[in-house]
This record gives sequence, C-alpha cells and structure tokens, in this order.
Amino acid sequence: MSLPFVVTSGEPAGIGPDLCLLMAREAQPHTLIAIASLELLKSRAELLGLDIQLLPVQPDAWPQTPAPAGSLYVWDTALKAPAEAGRLDPDNGPYVLETLTRAGQGCLNGTFAGMITAPVHKGVINEAGIPFSGHTEFLAELTHTEQVVMMLATHGLRVALVTTHLPLKDVASAITAERLERVTRILHADLVGKFGIARPRILVCGLNPHAGEGGHLGREEIEIIEPALARLRDEGIELIGPLPADTLFTPKNLEHCDAVLAMYHDQGLPVLKYKGFGAAVNVTLGLPIVRTSVDHGTALDLAGSGRIDTGSLQVALETAYQMSGA
Amino acid sequence: MSLPFVVTSGEPAGIGPDLCLLMAREAQPHTLIAIASLELLKSRAELLGLDIQLLPVQPDAWPQTPAPAGSLYVWDTALKAPAEAGRLDPDNGPYVLETLTRAGQGCLNGTFAGMITAPVHKGVINEAGIPFSGHTEFLAELTHTEQVVMMLATHGLRVALVTTHLPLKDVASAITAERLERVTRILHADLVGKFGIARPRILVCGLNPHAGEGGHLGREEIEIIEPALARLRDEGIELIGPLPADTLFTPKNLEHCDAVLAMYHDQGLPVLKYKGFGAAVNVTLGLPIVRTSVDHGTALDLAGSGRIDTGSLQVALETAYQMSGA
Repeated sequence: MSLPFVVTSGEPAGIGPDLCLLMAREAQPHTLIAIASLELLKSRAELLGLDIQLLPVQPDAWPQTPAPAGSLYVWDTALKAPAEAGRLDPDNGPYVLETLTRAGQGCLNGTFAGMITAPVHKGVINEAGIPFSGHTEFLAELTHTEQVVMMLATHGLRVALVTTHLPLKDVASAITAERLERVTRILHADLVGKFGIARPRILVCGLNPHAGEGGHLGREEIEIIEPALARLRDEGIELIGPLPADTLFTPKNLEHCDAVLAMYHDQGLPVLKYKGFGAAVNVTLGLPIVRTSVDHGTALDLAGSGRIDTGSLQVALETAYQMSGA
Repeated sequence: MSLPFVVTSGEPAGIGPDLCLLMAREAQPHTLIAIASLELLKSRAELLGLDIQLLPVQPDAWPQTPAPAGSLYVWDTALKAPAEAGRLDPDNGPYVLETLTRAGQGCLNGTFAGMITAPVHKGVINEAGIPFSGHTEFLAELTHTEQVVMMLATHGLRVALVTTHLPLKDVASAITAERLERVTRILHADLVGKFGIARPRILVCGLNPHAGEGGHLGREEIEIIEPALARLRDEGIELIGPLPADTLFTPKNLEHCDAVLAMYHDQGLPVLKYKGFGAAVNVTLGLPIVRTSVDHGTALDLAGSGRIDTGSLQVALETAYQMSGA
C-alpha cells in the first residue's frame, strides 16, 4: 500500500476543475484524490458533458487503491460562494487557500505522498484581502522553508532558476555567491533525493551574453559565479560552466546533463517551454514535501469549454510520482 | 546575368577556409567567389584531402556563371604570414580585414550582390594592434551606417535584438524608446525591402519576466515599450506585444509571425539556436548591402580536421540569395 496523491483544483472559475475531471476519464497508476468542492465538480462535469462518478472520501478513511477509470475521489471542500466558469469571485479566495492548506498539511504530516496543483489566480485572492504571491511562497511558509527553487521540466530537459520573478534591472545584483550556492545545493540535493539521480550533472549558464566573454561583456562570471562554482565543486557537486546560454542548449549538451541552472527567468524558460510545449511541469525544490504544478494559468476563457489540453497535468502527475519514489 | 556573391574566408587558422572548400564540392545556384589566399586554400585542401579546383578571378573580369561542382572561384588575397590550421597569428590580422574591405566595398559599389562571412577571431586582430569589435561594427563603419540590427534566423524563426553584446546589468537602461523605435523601423524596413514581406508581422518580447505582469515585475513595459509600440503602430507597422518571452515561442505564434523582436541577447537566442541547431544564420540589418554570416565561431581545434558541419553556411548562402532578390 502506498500513500495517496492529492490534486488541488485551484481557481474554481478556471480550468482546474475541468483538468481534474478530464484526468479521471482514465485510471491512474496511483491513488489520487481531488481536493475540491463536490458541488463545483458536479456542475462542471455537467457543463462539459462528462460522465465522471464522484466518490467522496474523508480523513481517516483514505482510499487504498486507485479509483477506476471514469471515477474520481474527492475530498469535498466547500465553496464560499457559487462558482461560475470564467467569472472570478473574490469570495472564493479563502476556498482556494483551504484546498492548498489541506494538501500541504497532509503532505507534511505524512498522509499524502505529494501534491499536484492546478492554477490559481493571484489577483482575485489579493482582492479578497488576503496577501498571496503564489503557490510557491504559500507552501514555503506553510512548511517553514526558507529557500525554495523553481524548476521547470519537460521530457529531456530540466531548467532551474537562480532568480525568478524579478524585474530584469534587479537580476544582476541579485546574483550573489551566497544565493547561487544555496540554490545549487538545493537543486543538487533534490536531484539526488527526489529524482534518484546518484551523481547529477548540472550545466550552469553565465549571467552575461557569451558568459561574459572573459570579462569583456560583464565581470560577474569572474568575480562571483566561477568562485562560487569552485566552492560547490569542492563539496562534490558536478557543475559545468558558466556557459554561454545561447549555445548551451544543444542536443549533445542536453543528452549529458540532468539539469540546467539558469540565472534568470527569461534566460532559461523560453527554450524549456518551446521544447516542452503543452507538456511542461513546474516543480518546487527545497520543500520538505513533493509538489508539482501545471505550467499554465487559469485560462478563464476556456473553463467549461472542453477545449483544453491535459498534457501539462499529465507530466505534473508523472513527475510527482517519480519524485515520491512511487 | 546577375552579380556574383562573395564569401570571406575569415580567420585563416580557423574553419573558414575549410567551409569555402567544402561548399565548393557542390554547384551553387549563383556565382560565388571566395575572398581568400589561394595558397591557404590550396594547403588546406591538401590537409583535408579534398580535390577542389581553385579558379583565380580578378576585378574587371568577374565570372558570369556559377563554378561547376568541385571548383571554386578565388579572389586571391595574400596572407601576411604563413597560416597554420589551429594556430592564431596576429600578423594575419590585416589580411582578415583586407578580405572584409574587398567584400564590403564591392557590395557597396554594386560589383557584388552580397557578402557571406566566415568567422573571424576578434582577439587576435586586436593583438595585432588593430581595434576591432566584430564584423558588424566594421561593416557599419565601412558603409557609414549609424545603426545596424543583429538578427538570427533559421527555418521558421527570425529573432532580431534591441540590444546585443551588453553586460546584463546594463540592458534595462539601454532599452529606451528611441532605440526601440529605431531598431524596429530597421527590422520592418528590411523585412519588407530585403525579405520581400509586404506586411511583416512582428512579435515583441517584454523586457521583464511575464512582460512585467501589469507593472508588478517591472515598469518598462508600461512606461517605455508600450508607448513606443503605439507610435510605431501609428506608422503602420504591425506589432504584437509586449509579450512574455517564456510563452511567446509557441508553434501557433511562430506560424503567424515574420520575426520576433527580443530585448536582449539571452532572451531571444537560446531558443533560436536550439530550434535551428547547426542551421542558423546571422544577418546584419540596416546596412546598405546584403551581409549574412555563419552563427558559429572559428573552431580552431577543428580546422583542417574535416569534422565540421556546413549547415550554417548553407543557410547563410540561401539567406543572402533571398535578401538580394537573386
């Protein structure tokens, strides 16, 4: 017997509920529980014309085996207001956070093997008067984790980021040796501990074009990045770089690496999302729990339409299974 | 009868001479002349075991038809010192520049239809005591062009850059409305005038992650980029954006655009070089002449080895033919 995984259905006006229902059409290899309003799933299924049997489950009586194809375990979590596809309502902000809290605490106390999150809408939660800057920060706080690392993955490529959602003008000064070392250690530890890679090989991008070209195009590689990588290598971490980002992503390089560490968001993610179009997963490293997420947004205009792709959710599920050793 | 194209063979110790010889194995659709040392090509051909017939040509007697397969027209340009594959020699710095000057002036005075450049080595030219920061800057000066635009292209994707070889910390402040407008006008004009696209559709990246997310992740989109794009649209240029760079490169977006305008080097080029691996071309826009280049370096360690790929040169040739309307 293995522990169940949970999927949080995210923003009720978005495509999260649709994803849960579409996913339930086929049997999963592991026990999976949606944390969502039963009422919401029922009405969304009607809207989609999907015949999914919803099976309510409860704490202390979690299911032990996967639900059959065409059915979905649901840990019913009450909406605060009726939800309509495509129409945001701040009243449901607390509902969204309750699903996350249930999932996160259950992972933390060993009830669940891992959590997979459907998209939330930051703006409407903030409108509800609740400060919220994203899943990652919320889960870091819930699990008392000081530093997390954002990594996106698709088949054949993982890209982790030293800095994430910063204005570009603030990126260079945020690349400190201390941050780079902390992030690299977390990446390395989770590649070993959660992805089961005995000796991960990590390619590291430079900060500047051509990785600074020997100092002609910026000195951070020489003054900060190279010394930090040298210290990390002394700890036994296998690192190649700093390499020019524009020529790093060759088939040969990618074949022989387990992850790429990019210095900032738009240096690493365009190629990852191009390569993994529709099948990329967002993984939070550094947490004491397993958490993966789809890499897209709430797509309010597509909620209830049936015209959505479950590719990213599939990869998010597979990655969570892999990370938990399931 | 159409004008000949010229290929400059670049750094004599690098793979430029090899590329000229390998290219000559097959007949070209247009007349092509290598600007190189005849002696150098002869010895490199021996090293490679290639039986290429070298056909010297001279000013005022340019060939009118393509050379047959297995032969190469050569405008002999004397080395200053013997050249050895893989060994840089500053004495040949002036030789490299002479090939460029011959090509550039011939294009400018209407003798040649366009020039294709093999890689040069900036460092060794500077060691020779000649200030040189690259092909692009050299040709801009030679042709008295104030502003040029760097664009890389491969099948199905063109990426032009607002800023190029700047340290990352200097990028944000270099994105001024004036520069963005100037670069966009050049890109648009050359897509129309040189690529024959009647009404180009250009996708523009934001500067910040998520294109600033409504000002939460940087304000340059709101304060600089959007107003500049609005002015350019008033001039009749079709622009979409600013868009988040990480989700811009989808098949659907790329299918419906003629070029992507990226704000900086590592935002646009990793995905271009990943997509176009081994078959990308570097084009200088804004010059009064047609100039394309391979997108790789001198590869000193591979000169004379025969283990090189001519994919990028092929695309550089095709693009030059296309741009000159040949």
